[in-house]
Parts: sequence; C-alpha cells; structure tokens
Amino acid sequence: MKRIRMVIRYDGTNYSGYQVQPNGNTIQAELEKALRKMHKGQLIKVTASGRTDARVHAIGQVIHFDTPLQIPIGNWKRALNSLLPEDIQVSSVDQAADDFHARYDTSGKEYRYYVRNHQEPDPFRRNYTYHVKAAIDIDAIKAACRYLEGEHDFTSFCSPKTDIKGSKVRTIYQADVSKRGDEVIFIFRGSGFLYNMVRILVGTLLEVGRKERRPEDIQRIIAAKDRIAAGKTAPPQGLFLWKVFY
Amino acid sequence: MKRIRMVIRYDGTNYSGYQVQPNGNTIQAELEKALRKMHKGQLIKVTASGRTDARVHAIGQVIHFDTPLQIPIGNWKRALNSLLPEDIQVSSVDQAADDFHARYDTSGKEYRYYVRNHQEPDPFRRNYTYHVKAAIDIDAIKAACRYLEGEHDFTSFCSPKTDIKGSKVRTIYQADVSKRGDEVIFIFRGSGFLYNMVRILVGTLLEVGRKERRPEDIQRIIAAKDRIAAGKTAPPQGLFLWKVFY
Repeated sequence: MKRIRMVIRYDGTNYSGYQVQPNGNTIQAELEKALRKMHKGQLIKVTASGRTDARVHAIGQVIHFDTPLQIPIGNWKRALNSLLPEDIQVSSVDQAADDFHARYDTSGKEYRYYVRNHQEPDPFRRNYTYHVKAAIDIDAIKAACRYLEGEHDFTSFCSPKTDIKGSKVRTIYQADVSKRGDEVIFIFRGSGFLYNMVRILVGTLLEVGRKERRPEDIQRIIAAKDRIAAGKTAPPQGLFLWKVFY
Repeated sequence: MKRIRMVIRYDGTNYSGYQVQPNGNTIQAELEKALRKMHKGQLIKVTASGRTDARVHAIGQVIHFDTPLQIPIGNWKRALNSLLPEDIQVSSVDQAADDFHARYDTSGKEYRYYVRNHQEPDPFRRNYTYHVKAAIDIDAIKAACRYLEGEHDFTSFCSPKTDIKGSKVRTIYQADVSKRGDEVIFIFRGSGFLYNMVRILVGTLLEVGRKERRPEDIQRIIAAKDRIAAGKTAPPQGLFLWKVFY
C-alpha cells in the first residue's frame, strides 16, 4: 500500500458539497467512484483537508488515499481525470509519507471570495460571484480587516450548526480585499476556519463596505462571542477554497 | 400596441437552444413565460435576430415583440429581469418603429468563439470554451482568415441539416483570431451566417492551426461547395452571438 496526496479543483455548482451524504451527489462520491473504477470495484476511501459546502468551489483542495496499485506516480493524474466529470479535475499527484493526513496535518488555509459589484447581474458569473448592487467602500473594509487579523476567538463568526465542541480560537494571518474591474475579491489566510466562517466574515465586511457598520465595530463583534453580533452569511457561490498549507 | 426592441444576454449551458421546441427548455420559452406574467396570462410572441443552438451563448441577441401595456420604457428592463431566470438577462430596452423586425432587418452579425488552449481542461471554463490540447499556430490561422473574408458561396461551411433553400452566398467582413493567456479567441463579422457556419469555420481553422491543413487550402474548400471539404464542427459551448447589426 502507498499513500497518495492529490491537489484537486472543482466547480461546486452542481454538487451538494464535498462530503458524501445520503441524498445528493458530492465531490467525494465522484472521487471515490473514479477510484473504484481504477481499483476494479474496490472501495478506496478518500480524506480531504476539510469539507466545502454546496455550490462552494475549490482551486487547491487537498486529499489523500491509500492504494495497492503499482501505477507510476506520473500516470495517476491522467487516469483519474479521464474518469472524473468535467467539473472536477486533478491538478497534481504525489506519493506522500505513509503517515501524511490531508486533514490533521494542515497548518493553514487560504480562501477567496468573489463579489460582483455592479448594478446588473452577469449571467456568466452568477455561479462564481455574489452579486451586490450597492456601492462598496473598499477602504472601510480594509480598515475592518486589520481588526480581524491575529489570534481571536471567532465564535461570533461561526455557524451555530457547527459540530466543533472545542476551542474556537483561530489565527487569521491575512485578511484583505481588492477591486478588479467590477469584482471585489476577498482573501483570507488563517490557521483554520470554523463552519461558515469565511462567508460570515464576508457578509459582515460587506455591511462595513455599505456603511451599515463601522470598521472598529469588528472588535466588539469578536468580543461578543455570539453569532448574532456578526452580519449575514454571504451566499456560497462566491467562495473558493484556494490553497491548503502543510 | 407598441413594438419593443430588446438586447438580451444569456448563458446557454442549460438550454436546448433559443427557439421553442416540443421537448426542452429554451430561451424563447423563458422570455415568453416572463412576458406572459407581465401581460396577465396573454401570450406575447417574441421574434429574435436568429436562433442559437443548445449550449450556445449570447452577449448581444436582439428580439422584438408587441405589447399593449402602457409601461414607461425605462421600467421594462427591471420588470423583466425580476421575472427571468438568472442565466437570461435583459441588457437594454427601446421602443422600436412599428415595422422594426429583429430578424429581417439585420444587416450583419458578430460571433466570437473561445478556445482554451492548454494541456489541462479548466473546470470553471468548461461551459464557455472548447478545450484544445494541441499547439495552435495563430499566424497560420490568421493567414487562413484572409481567404475567408469577402463575398463567397459558403456551402462548404453550412450544415446539411440547414433549412435554407436559397443562396448560400454571404460576406465575411472580418475574420480574425487572437491569443489572450490560455485562450484563443475567434471573431467573425459578416452579413449573415449559415447553419453551424461559425462552428465549421472554427473547426476548419483549428485544423490549419494544428498544421493538418494549409492556410491556402481555404480557397479549395470554398470552391468545393461541399460540406465534406471543410473540417469538423467545433462544439457549441465556445460560441457567443456577440452583436447584431441593423
């Protein structure tokens, strides 16, 4: 047996999320279906760095699995891509240490979130951006981002539906926003992210950008340790799991 | 009654094409459904500049219809966009002359075709580009484009499934290709285009780009007046009806 580590990208539009669940097609189920074909019907269980929700995308999701196959490492990518649907693709494949673990070994993650800031929706970007008509004050959001960076208890930015029982202290190394044409792009790098955390961060920062909150309100929101203190959860389709660090 | 002229854009991915047909959802059916809601159940028939096939997109499709409603012209766009699905949007609305006709009055059209030229497919561009792995010689295609421009009988570039009985003489004002990053973009402006003409032009030009044909072969292909003489029909998802001229 050897352990394989893969970087994959996917368009989450037509999936109920990453993780296998009773009703709904998922990224994990497609990966395991393709691997099952390569393994003559044998179930190969795949472990990812973490889940992504329905309609959320990934550019650099990382997974691992164990295989008895003696395929040269350079051939895996093409073999799997020929079996996977067009909206899920393997970017790179490496042999990993036997004890490598895609979830437990992560040292951090980068997420990006895309907003279309324009009077009109764009039919071609509808599945990859959140459409916001109102003017967005980028500088106000940048100021708010400064209060997010660092080690904090992010309970206020965690969905109550989480199954995390332990500490909600995480470190955000970088929170930033920029504008490119009609798109506003958020970047978050951190040690780890709670359930819906990036989408709640974006929803709250957009309220700052629309002058409904002040940048310095972020301090109070963090201190509250209460989901009610933060803003709305931004919708899933603007979110991309960009990179996983080990 | 007044005649309304609208420019619409749509992502054709999830449609069986523009024109209403027995089995399948179409752009026209969605437009007429939205108009029917605005007209309290009355059928408002819509006429477009021309059809687009299943999975083909439009940036500047033009349609017209007649309405008894006394709505200020500035309010139509928002009213319709609130009733249309996210992948079909109205870009502009004007009152037209009573005898304006979206199909008969066209003086020309511009189509663009997008190719992704990269070793790997991109899950996020799969519905908007044709993925071609082989190296493409842009200069060879540019040379071939020179033979296409002008007035010709384009029978060789017309699907035999066409219902056109008359002349297949058309004028191509401009045929051009350019490369931007990993994308190769074709532009065709002409007096009119036959059934599948742009897709057969692109399929043939890509064979020139892959050195399977020489640029000057275009002359022979046009002269043959036989679909067999030209190249393969490129797939629909790279094609955009970009602009209609009147």
